[in-house]
Amino acid sequence: MTHWIRFALADGSEGFGTLEGERIAEYHGDMFGTPQASGRTYALAELRLLSPCSPSKVIALWNNYHQLAARLEKAPPAHPLFMILPSTSVTGTGEAIRRPPGYAGKIVFEGELGVVIGRTCRNVSELEAGAYIFGYTCINDVTAIEILTEDPNFPQWGRSKSFDTFTCVGPAIASQIDLATASVLTTLDGVERQNYPLSDMIFTPAQIVSRLSADLTLCPGDVIACGTSVGVGSMKNGARISIAISGIGELTNHLQA
Amino acid sequence: MTHWIRFALADGSEGFGTLEGERIAEYHGDMFGTPQASGRTYALAELRLLSPCSPSKVIALWNNYHQLAARLEKAPPAHPLFMILPSTSVTGTGEAIRRPPGYAGKIVFEGELGVVIGRTCRNVSELEAGAYIFGYTCINDVTAIEILTEDPNFPQWGRSKSFDTFTCVGPAIASQIDLATASVLTTLDGVERQNYPLSDMIFTPAQIVSRLSADLTLCPGDVIACGTSVGVGSMKNGARISIAISGIGELTNHLQA
Repeated sequence: MTHWIRFALADGSEGFGTLEGERIAEYHGDMFGTPQASGRTYALAELRLLSPCSPSKVIALWNNYHQLAARLEKAPPAHPLFMILPSTSVTGTGEAIRRPPGYAGKIVFEGELGVVIGRTCRNVSELEAGAYIFGYTCINDVTAIEILTEDPNFPQWGRSKSFDTFTCVGPAIASQIDLATASVLTTLDGVERQNYPLSDMIFTPAQIVSRLSADLTLCPGDVIACGTSVGVGSMKNGARISIAISGIGELTNHLQA
Repeated sequence: MTHWIRFALADGSEGFGTLEGERIAEYHGDMFGTPQASGRTYALAELRLLSPCSPSKVIALWNNYHQLAARLEKAPPAHPLFMILPSTSVTGTGEAIRRPPGYAGKIVFEGELGVVIGRTCRNVSELEAGAYIFGYTCINDVTAIEILTEDPNFPQWGRSKSFDTFTCVGPAIASQIDLATASVLTTLDGVERQNYPLSDMIFTPAQIVSRLSADLTLCPGDVIACGTSVGVGSMKNGARISIAISGIGELTNHLQA
């Protein structure tokens, strides 16, 4: 299994490579094409991790876990329900989630599995979908929850989740994980808040990629946030929030006032 | 006033330039930087127009005209209400709007003014906003309207408008228009369906850019669809739909089964 990451060096230059224990093996070229090892390695301490890809869009699912659907007393949807989040909302591990200027309300974490697309994908079957999945990452799909219901006529799913830094992605893209056994573990200031199995998904990654690709073209590096399950809650200013998924790693951010 | 367009030549190569009567003056470099005239010109008939920019995101407003708000009996919103549409939904003038596979329901046109961002823009005031607006274009913000309300728990604004080819943009970006006098004129198979003044907007382009830039970073080429007004309706397969705005030009597409 490979863990792909992107990084910035002290001089501001950016690169990408694979995690090899405590070191990074640098690659050149296109992560989603045929990247070539440069032969150069870095210690993790020498660099700052970036979001492991720069998606042209993030597609964020709602109501995709049986346990949460049951808790909310919502029927499982007939098709993946989603909103589009912009590339500008994406940030990497270690970065601040910035409270929107002028917004003093609750900010909610949602630990999620992220699916990263590897090849341009349109109208593929569920059987074909796996070949278009580059790998898996951790997502914190942050929401300024009081904005969602601020207007009585229009639920603001887009705005409440589109603020800069509200889509935390990382730390790495794992080329494979065990979807049958892995769990999403969310920890807020050291206290476990979510711990749910990926096996409880209503639509699996292959089903999601197939269904979404019938609607809209998926591009290399695009990220699908597979929805969250029970245990979401709000974060205080300064809180430290981590999303860990077995086989991927741990995505950690903090809420900056 | 300048009219910027992008084009494809018969050999598949793409370029951009300015409209000069029936000819195009080609430019090189970055449309949003300091583009240089190449000295080469083309006849319009030699090339195919593309969407005049390739936005990283489209921000589509809802409920932004007094007349439509009154008709729908909705209060004017306190902040622009919007959804994010992906770059993959964008198409240019002359192209087909493709009916989503498996969807036999109504497909609705919405003629709108589009604001094109020229410079990276974050947290700018209403007074500063004009300097970040590159120009104005016509938008047809197409919606598979029966998908919007298909799930009882989640209005699918994102999905119903995110299908490939559902965000028609063009034909040109006009560097200036007269917002006080210009109208949006929508024509379906030669019959006028919308004819509403831009002066009826609830949030003006400068107000929209200022408010949105407080939420999320706007990038060069990003498009804000300013919302529609009265007169939206559905299109039959094969219908020809045009959106014209004085000072910009006419965006024409057809609905392909």
